Order: sequence, then C-alpha cells, then structure tokens
Amino acid sequence: MTEPHERLLDRIDRPQDLHGLSDEELQRVAQEVREHIIDTVGEIGGHFGANLGMCEVTVALHSLLDSPKDKILWDVGHQAYPHKILTGRRDELSTIRQYEGLAPFCAIHESEHDIMGAGHASTSIGYAVGLKEGMKLAGDVDAGKVVAVIGDGAMTGGVAFEAISQAGGLGTPIVVVLNDNGMSIAPNVGALSRYFNRVRLNPKLWHAREGMEERLTTLPGGIGAAFDRLGPQLKESIKSFWAPGLFWEELDWAYMGVIDGHDIRALRRALSAALTAGRPVVVHTATVKGKGFTPAEEGGLEGMEKWHAAKPKSITNRAPTVTVPSSTSTPATPAPPQYTKVFGDALVEEVRRDRRVVGITAAMNSGTGLNILQKAEPEHYFDVGIAEQQAVLFASGLALEGAKPVCAIYSTFLQRAYDQIVHDVCLQELDVVFAMDRAGLVGDDGPTHHGAFDIAYLRSLPNMTLAAPRDEAMLKHLLRTALTVGGPFGLRYPRGEAVGVPLPVADAVSPVPVGKGEVLREGSRVALIGYGSGVGKALEAADLLAEQDDLDVTVVDARFAKPLDVELMSTLAGDHELLVTVEEGVLAGGFGSAVWEALNDRGVAVPRMLRVGLPDRYVTHGKPALLHAEVGFTGRDIARRVEAALFAGRGEVLSEA
Amino acid sequence: MTEPHERLLDRIDRPQDLHGLSDEELQRVAQEVREHIIDTVGEIGGHFGANLGMCEVTVALHSLLDSPKDKILWDVGHQAYPHKILTGRRDELSTIRQYEGLAPFCAIHESEHDIMGAGHASTSIGYAVGLKEGMKLAGDVDAGKVVAVIGDGAMTGGVAFEAISQAGGLGTPIVVVLNDNGMSIAPNVGALSRYFNRVRLNPKLWHAREGMEERLTTLPGGIGAAFDRLGPQLKESIKSFWAPGLFWEELDWAYMGVIDGHDIRALRRALSAALTAGRPVVVHTATVKGKGFTPAEEGGLEGMEKWHAAKPKSITNRAPTVTVPSSTSTPATPAPPQYTKVFGDALVEEVRRDRRVVGITAAMNSGTGLNILQKAEPEHYFDVGIAEQQAVLFASGLALEGAKPVCAIYSTFLQRAYDQIVHDVCLQELDVVFAMDRAGLVGDDGPTHHGAFDIAYLRSLPNMTLAAPRDEAMLKHLLRTALTVGGPFGLRYPRGEAVGVPLPVADAVSPVPVGKGEVLREGSRVALIGYGSGVGKALEAADLLAEQDDLDVTVVDARFAKPLDVELMSTLAGDHELLVTVEEGVLAGGFGSAVWEALNDRGVAVPRMLRVGLPDRYVTHGKPALLHAEVGFTGRDIARRVEAALFAGRGEVLSEA
Repeated sequence: MTEPHERLLDRIDRPQDLHGLSDEELQRVAQEVREHIIDTVGEIGGHFGANLGMCEVTVALHSLLDSPKDKILWDVGHQAYPHKILTGRRDELSTIRQYEGLAPFCAIHESEHDIMGAGHASTSIGYAVGLKEGMKLAGDVDAGKVVAVIGDGAMTGGVAFEAISQAGGLGTPIVVVLNDNGMSIAPNVGALSRYFNRVRLNPKLWHAREGMEERLTTLPGGIGAAFDRLGPQLKESIKSFWAPGLFWEELDWAYMGVIDGHDIRALRRALSAALTAGRPVVVHTATVKGKGFTPAEEGGLEGMEKWHAAKPKSITNRAPTVTVPSSTSTPATPAPPQYTKVFGDALVEEVRRDRRVVGITAAMNSGTGLNILQKAEPEHYFDVGIAEQQAVLFASGLALEGAKPVCAIYSTFLQRAYDQIVHDVCLQELDVVFAMDRAGLVGDDGPTHHGAFDIAYLRSLPNMTLAAPRDEAMLKHLLRTALTVGGPFGLRYPRGEAVGVPLPVADAVSPVPVGKGEVLREGSRVALIGYGSGVGKALEAADLLAEQDDLDVTVVDARFAKPLDVELMSTLAGDHELLVTVEEGVLAGGFGSAVWEALNDRGVAVPRMLRVGLPDRYVTHGKPALLHAEVGFTGRDIARRVEAALFAGRGEVLSEA
Repeated sequence: MTEPHERLLDRIDRPQDLHGLSDEELQRVAQEVREHIIDTVGEIGGHFGANLGMCEVTVALHSLLDSPKDKILWDVGHQAYPHKILTGRRDELSTIRQYEGLAPFCAIHESEHDIMGAGHASTSIGYAVGLKEGMKLAGDVDAGKVVAVIGDGAMTGGVAFEAISQAGGLGTPIVVVLNDNGMSIAPNVGALSRYFNRVRLNPKLWHAREGMEERLTTLPGGIGAAFDRLGPQLKESIKSFWAPGLFWEELDWAYMGVIDGHDIRALRRALSAALTAGRPVVVHTATVKGKGFTPAEEGGLEGMEKWHAAKPKSITNRAPTVTVPSSTSTPATPAPPQYTKVFGDALVEEVRRDRRVVGITAAMNSGTGLNILQKAEPEHYFDVGIAEQQAVLFASGLALEGAKPVCAIYSTFLQRAYDQIVHDVCLQELDVVFAMDRAGLVGDDGPTHHGAFDIAYLRSLPNMTLAAPRDEAMLKHLLRTALTVGGPFGLRYPRGEAVGVPLPVADAVSPVPVGKGEVLREGSRVALIGYGSGVGKALEAADLLAEQDDLDVTVVDARFAKPLDVELMSTLAGDHELLVTVEEGVLAGGFGSAVWEALNDRGVAVPRMLRVGLPDRYVTHGKPALLHAEVGFTGRDIARRVEAALFAGRGEVLSEA
C-alpha cells in the first residue's frame, strides 16, 4: 500500500496537474483516488460504490480536458467524489455531506469545476446540449468541450432521451460517457437496461467486433449482391455486431463501446477520438460498482446495493469494520423503527388484505421500503426504473383496471410526475395513492432532496386528498384510509426514525374519517395545529410553554391538509386568540395558508395566525436536527414565537424565518 | 359523392357493426368517416388534419377489436374524431368542443369507449402497460387487447420512452400503432423524428425489405462464415434494412413497418398479426395529415400546419370557404391583437436589443408566437419537440453560458417540467424566463388545457419572480423586466385577444420595478387587487359598483405575485374594509393567499378578504365567456359578491364558487 507522503495524488491540486502524467502514472493516481475515498468515506459515511467505479474515468477525463473551460457534467453528483478530489477539494472530502462541509452532489456555488448541480437523475445531457449551443450562440463554438457523464440507470429517465433526440437532431458536438455498471442504487430494470446488459456482459463479442470493423474497412466494395443469398442467421450475427451502435446511430449519435472503464489507456484513446469528432458521441464504458473494495465488488448485487453508500465508521483499514458486541453494557432500548420500514410492512399487510393493492417504485426499492413488498408479494411489486412519470401513468392504467396502486416515491422525486398527477390522475379521478417518503428536510442529501414543496404543489389540485401521520401508528391508519376512500390520495411522512409509539396489529388498523382532525390537548389562548411531523414540534412547544409560561395551549393534529377539518378549525378560531400552524414544508401556499383560506371562505373571524414551516429559500445539507434549528422548526422556536406574539402587540413581524 | 342516405356509416352505431364488413366496405366506411369530418368540422371548427389521416387506421382497429372490452388508447385525443364517430357519437360530432357538447379529446366520463382522457401528449403507452398488467394482476390476462395509438411527434416525449422501456422489460403484450405523418402541429424536429422520416419516406426500401425477409426465411443455414468476407457497404445495406426494426427490437419490442396507413387491407393484416403476438409490438403506419382534403394534403408543410385545426365555417362543399370581401360595409374597427402575436413580436425586439436572448418552444411554434421569431431570427430560435422537460434543461444549459433563454410554453404544458423548474432552474438561480401563454381558462380545449395551476405551483418556489400583465403593453414591459432582472422569472398571460391598448414602440419599452404594483383607481371601502387578466375583471366590477351602488372602489394592478408589493398591500389593508383579490387561477395557494400571507407575516391587521379565482374543480370546455360565467369570474359576479360582503355581516360564506 502506498504511504500518504508518496502519493502522486498529493501533487494534484487542480485537474491540470494531471496533464503531464503518463498512462501508468494516471492509472496510479486513479487507484490513489480510490483509496482516498475508501479511507475517507469509510470513516465519515457517504456515497460509495458508484464513486469507486468512476476513479479511472474521472482521471482519464481530467487528463484530457482543461476544466472548467472544458465542462464535465456529472449526472446525479453521487458519482462525482473523484471529480471533487481532483479539482482542489481532496483534503476537504472528509467534510462531505456534513453541515457546512462539501455538498453531497456537485454544486455550482462550491467550485468553478462543478458546472451544474444535480441530485435528481437524467439531467446532464440536456444541460450539455444547452451549454454547447450557448457557446455557438455566443459565437465561440470552440469555447470548450462539453462532456456529460451519466449512469445506465439514469438513461431510463425520459428527459435523457429527450435530450439525446435534440442533440442528435442539432448535431451538437457533445460527448456522453455512459457509466454502465448495471446498477443505480439497486439493479436496473426495463428493456433499456437489459439492452445495456447484453452489450456489457459480452466483452468477447465486442473485442471481436473491433477486429471485424478494421477488417471490413480494408475490403474492396461491390459485395452488395452477396446480400440476397444470406439467411436469418446473418441477421442475428449482424444484430449482435451492430445493434448496440445502431440504437444510437439511428438517433444520429456516433457510438463507441464497450470500453473497459478501469483501463486508463483504453479510456483515453476512446475519449480523445470522441472529443475531436465534432458531433454527438456516446462512449459506452463498463465499470464495476464498488471497484477495488472487495465486499462490494465480490458481494454480487447484494454487495453492490449494500455499499451504494457507506455508513460512518463502517470501514477500517479498507475492510468492513468488525463490531464486537459489548457484553458488559445493558441492552439498549430498541430505537423506534424507520418510517420506511413501517410503511413497507404496512403495504404488505394491505396487499394481503386486498389483492387489488400493488406497490410501485421508481428505482428506489429499499429507500421506499418496497423491498419488503418485493420479497413478500413479488407479483404485487413493480419497479419502473428511474422513471417517475411512467410510475404514475402505469399506476393510472392499473387503476383503470380496478387495481389499487400505491406509488411510493420520495416527495422530491414525485415532482417529476407533477403533470401526470394533474392530468392523468386528478383530472381522471383515479384511485392512485402517492406515498411520499422523505417529506420535509431529509438531512445529508441537502437541497436537491428536501421534500419541501409537496403540500403546496398537491394542495391546489382538484380531487386530491392529502394526509400526513404524526407517528407510525397513524401512518398505518392513513394508508388504510387512502386505500379505502378512493380517488387521488397523497400521504407524506418524514425520513428517518418514527416516534416510537406501539404499532397497531393488522386487525386494529382502521380508516380515519377523511377531513377530520384530532384534538390532542385542550388548552386556552393558543391553538397549535400541526400537520404530519409538525404535530411533534407542536407538542414540544406546548410542553415548553406549560413549563416556562404556565400556559396550557391547545394542540391539534390536523391529519388532513385537504380536505381540512373546517368545523374544527372554526371552533379553534372562535376559542383562541392565536392560531399557530406547524408544517414541514414551504409556507407559500402551504398548510397554514389552507387553514386561513378555509376560515376566510367560511366568513369566520380569523384570529391572529402564526405559520411555522420551511422558509422561502433552499435549505442546505446536514443532520436534520441542525437544519431544523437553522430554519426555526423546533419546539423551542415555536414556543419563543408564541411568547413574542402573545406578549407583544400587533405590528410585530411574524415572518417565518 | 355518396349521398347521406346511402352511407354505410349510418348503419355503424357501435364499433361491432364493422365486424361483418369486407375490406372494401371498410375502406368505404373510412372514406365516409373522412367526409363526415370534413363536412362537420369544416362547419363548426375543430381539430382536422390529424383526424383525416386516421380514418382507415381507426376503422381497421375497430373492425378487429371488441371495444370497450378491447381497449384503444388515443394519445392526445385530437386524432380521435373517427373513433368518436364509430363509437356511437356520429351524430353528435357537430357539438364537439362546444359548451356542453362532445369533449375535444377522449374523456372517460363521456363514453365507455374512451378508455383514458388525454390532452397532453405521450401518455398512452404508459397507460397501456398499466392496463395490461392490471388485467394480469386480476388474474385475467385475456380480459382484452390493449392498443395505444400515438403520433410520431408524441414519441419525442420522454415519458413515452420510459413506457417503452418498461413494457419491453416486462414483455407486456400490448400493441402500439405509430401514426407517423412527420407532423404534430408543426413539422416534428429532433433525431427521433429524422429517423422516422428516413424510414417512412423510403417505401420502396421497405417494400424490398418485406420481400427480402420472406426469402431469407426460406434459406438454409450455415452461412455465418460468409460474413467475414463482406465490407462496409454491407453494413450500410444492413442498416437500411434492419435498423429501424432494431431500434425497437433492442428494447424487446417486435417491429412491423412501414404499413400504408390508408390501406385497410394492409392495416388489418398487420394489426391481426400484432394483436396475436403475445408480446409488445409496434406497428409503424405512414399516414398523411389532412388526407383527402386537397388544400391540406397538397399544400405541403404549410397546408398541413394550416389545417391542423379548421376554423368554424372554413369549409363549404368540402373546399375552403371563399370569403367575398363585402365592399359596402364600413371598415370594421381592427380587433385587438392576440397576446401570442404581441409576445412573438416583442421577443424579436428583445433578441435584436440583446443578442443573448433566445426563444425555446416545445413543438408549439405558432401557438406560442415563436414562428415570428423563427422567421426573423432563426439562430435565436429552438424547437425541442414535444419535450417540455428538455426545453427547460436546455434553457438551463444556455443560461450557464450566459444566454437569456425564454421558454415559451403554455401554462398547462409547463407542468411537465415542474421538477426541472424546481431543481435545475430555481435551485441553481439561473436566468430562465418562462413565458406562459394560455394562462387561465383556454376555452374550447377544456380541462386538459386550462392554465389553472401555475400561480400556485410556481409561487412556492424560492428565487422565483412571478408577474402577469393586465394588457399587451404591460406584456412588453414585463418581458423586458424578465430579461433585465435575471433569475427565474415566470410571466403568464391569457389565451386570445389582448385588451386593445396602444403598444409601446421598442424604444419606449422599459422594465417595471420588480415587486411594485400600480394603483389604477383610488377609492374607498373596497380595494380590488387584480393579477394579470384579473385586473380587467376588477375594473369591470368597479364600474358596476360605481354605477349600481355609487361606490368608488380602489383598483390595483398587483403586477407581481412574487415578490408582492407588501408596502402597497399594507396600505390598502389599512385604508379599506374589504380586500378583493382577482386572479385567473385556482384559489388554493394562489395569488389571494399570497396577499394574505404577506400581510399576516408582517403583522398587519388584515381586513375582510374575498378571493376571486378558479374553483377547486376541473372546468369543462367551451367559449371562455361561458366558462368565466360558469365559475363566476366576471365583473358582474365580483360586484355582486362585493355587495353581499359589504351589505351583509361577517358569518356569511364567502367561498369562491
């Protein structure tokens, strides 16, 4: 193992420092980058497997390009750690995903080498076309090379295909490096993925092809006539030899592949040709997710999936940390379950209760808890790949046939399917449930992943019912409600640990009356009205107000943002001098506004209102507790603001952040 | 010409009535359907060209299928008039697009034969996969055949590709009929379209292929060895012969094509094979947009584009109506220009003022007015095809290179790009302008096309500026503002005629201060605060209140929904007993709520508020004036509600609809 002081990597302070190195030295740098990631991410946690697979590709690209004049676009930046390391952020890698540390993905405000920001998949090719055409528009088509690096999983996203069609149509000279490892987080699905597999998993064939093409080029012409005499076997041979390229060539892209994504020399040769082609070129590289870390690389699909991200302190001396159970300590209280797991288990129960129920994920099998359904009831489980729009259309078709589809898609990713929700579910009044995990601030993944907008973007849609549980027991009741009442139904719940309340057994799960809230504490002067995770914060605030100010306030769980419990809200408005709404979503058009709208439309005299929620800005990454403190989404902040409102007069600024 | 009483069509009251007919009779029915459309739509107006091209395909499908047990899904229902005619709605066709008449597209509540509703493109394949998998889930995979009919233009939409990948992956036995006429509304663009063109425009080649495949099948095997001796010419020949099929075959679809879309016999033969294949099959049909109507069919691209839809009374005796200019009548006052044209002209001026400005359309060249830009400044014009997501990503890339992109996309279609707006424009703080034509109720196109949600779905996004002009002069000023201030900027304006105010010449156009409203009339007791087209309604209401009640109310043009003019709103709140907000958008989370939020967050005592806007339901189709009356979005309704609010006490229900 190379000692730190001997590392070539320590001399790479900017990507141009790679330019003078030989192929062998570059290969060594790539391995040092890999070890740097294993050592650092194994200690602090972070995205792992995809980065290990990209070390050589990244070194090869930066060795040929002059970043940031030349622009490398990383599709979903969780494969961009090597890029961060090579662009002046080597020694800061240990801060990645930490509050105030390096961003989890590329971030244009972090480095001039991060050309675009992206935590959602499939966007890089679209940007690339815009960048290159922008150079042309500015009269300088040679202003820089533009390369988009995209995984095979992200290619499933429809917008990637839209971009390929536009670039091919315009002949925009960009290069797409297809990082094909057969995986995104879980193994990829769908026909496109199978096509990539066929190509990638048959290297012998492709080696043969390379030789073949050379020979063919040297042959004399005039053999077209021989064609007629050949049979269907020829067709199969031809498909094997040319089809993968033809798929791209029919869209007016040049195709190069398959290149060993861990061979610097081969990569540099292919990329050099692609960068000078003057037309759209795809360079298809085969990489191994988790390359160089045995438990990932040799652990099969399970190993790759497990090591997509590494937990903090999960690696010691470049091997999984061995945890010795401490026999002397008392057994710890079991932690509350994750909402994700509660949802996954609950969905299995629902499928067993009603065979019309199916779960749909968009390539977020374990992230949504649908891995549990997949194991328990594989016939009732569908993964559409990174294709949220199709997840919702597919659900619409299923609903038309009488099924009860549950689209389990993170709040932030469901944004991709907004039009399908408006036009294909709500307008058609179909029975589709949207189970939105990761609603609210998600923590380390940061602003691209926070589920901040779903209350606002779904509340304005006709026919939609929106609910959010305050704890894991209510999640089960509300899921049952969603599958019972019919129509479009959105259910949001936060990332991470649930509250720790007892879970109802299957028989005890029962639907909640739609549009009915629940009074948790009866008090006076102030009513705290929580929605979803806001209920817990409201209860914390109520405790503090009781303790500090001897103020017993009313606490309500609204349960539904649409339809609202207008009766209850009207009563609260009549009985209190201050209403406080608490929601983990942006305030503009959010739950708090819904409460006011309902009261105002009824002609109820609205007392003073204080809306607590997320601010009108994108929130950074970091542990949720830090972020909640930063934006004032804590019981303490709520209590403080209630005190200020009660003990100061009108005229004070009650703004949200 | 066949007399009506002799028509076979008159005996077709349900699709099953086609089952006993011969190919020749079916061919005749198709022609009768065509003439029925020409006669009816030429009189009342409606979608035209695409329908004329689909007569034979529709007859062929219904002659083989048992609808609605078998399900035909029409992608964007404006090609579905023949389907409506053959499924019991022949005699009601004359009511299509009229208020309370037949819906402009397929509508699941209108007929059991309309399996899905769709006014947005590219959704049918996704539904088809869901329907077929739903049958399988219900244990009855033979419950019915499922066919999606989709235009080549709609194939550009990424979600169609997502669906193809899923269906290929699952092997779902559905049939896609590709209606390939090279056009959507305007000629299609992009590499996919060019690929279709190559195939479609070379029928001889495809005829040759058919013969070739038959011969190849009969040949003995063992000719693989001959392969090595062949050269690059072979590759080209092979590409020509197999590539179009391979594109689909690589995604695990079977491909059949190209079929003459006007030959019933050929269509029926191909469709019969496809329907029994037991796997995903695409049947590629070549059709002629405007088939059978000479001015469309022989008018080239211009003719086809012109006759995409027919205006009322535009056809007499199956030929364009000849309008004789009346020499005796006095010259009419020129009608106000369309907002679309004002925008198109203004964008050309902006491009000439600032060469960084570019216009982007998603296959809505003339609908957005960008045809004007295309002619005047072709280098500054981009059409990405039916690919709204890519329009926004492309704009993001351009913006990163310092360009000033204007995405001209109807309010309703911009919904497709919601995630790109959140994640790729607003989070990245890029200078992208969204010019949203058709904001508000669009009229005849109905609920799939109303621009009802954009205020709500954009207002909640950080870094976004939102503005709406009250007239065409302000549209020019606000477009200049958008291109001057930077950052994400949404500009909404209604469909149809502008107000008729004088337009400022280029030199007189100047940016408006962001976040500043304008007081149009100073009055007392009531302040009417309009946004965009709401200002006109507010002025009408003010006139009525002055006339009927001797009440001089204040009228304000808010101009910006974000940031709001909080100073002005606070002053209005202090000086009036009733604030009335008027916006042509849904009220949940809309502009009215924004006004309340701003006042409340400032701690301003909020007087009574009345919010006027669109209701929490999908609004039907019909002339805008009828729809505005239906939902209460008129000066008269506003005046009536103001009277009720002033002359009744609190406690009255002030709900919106």
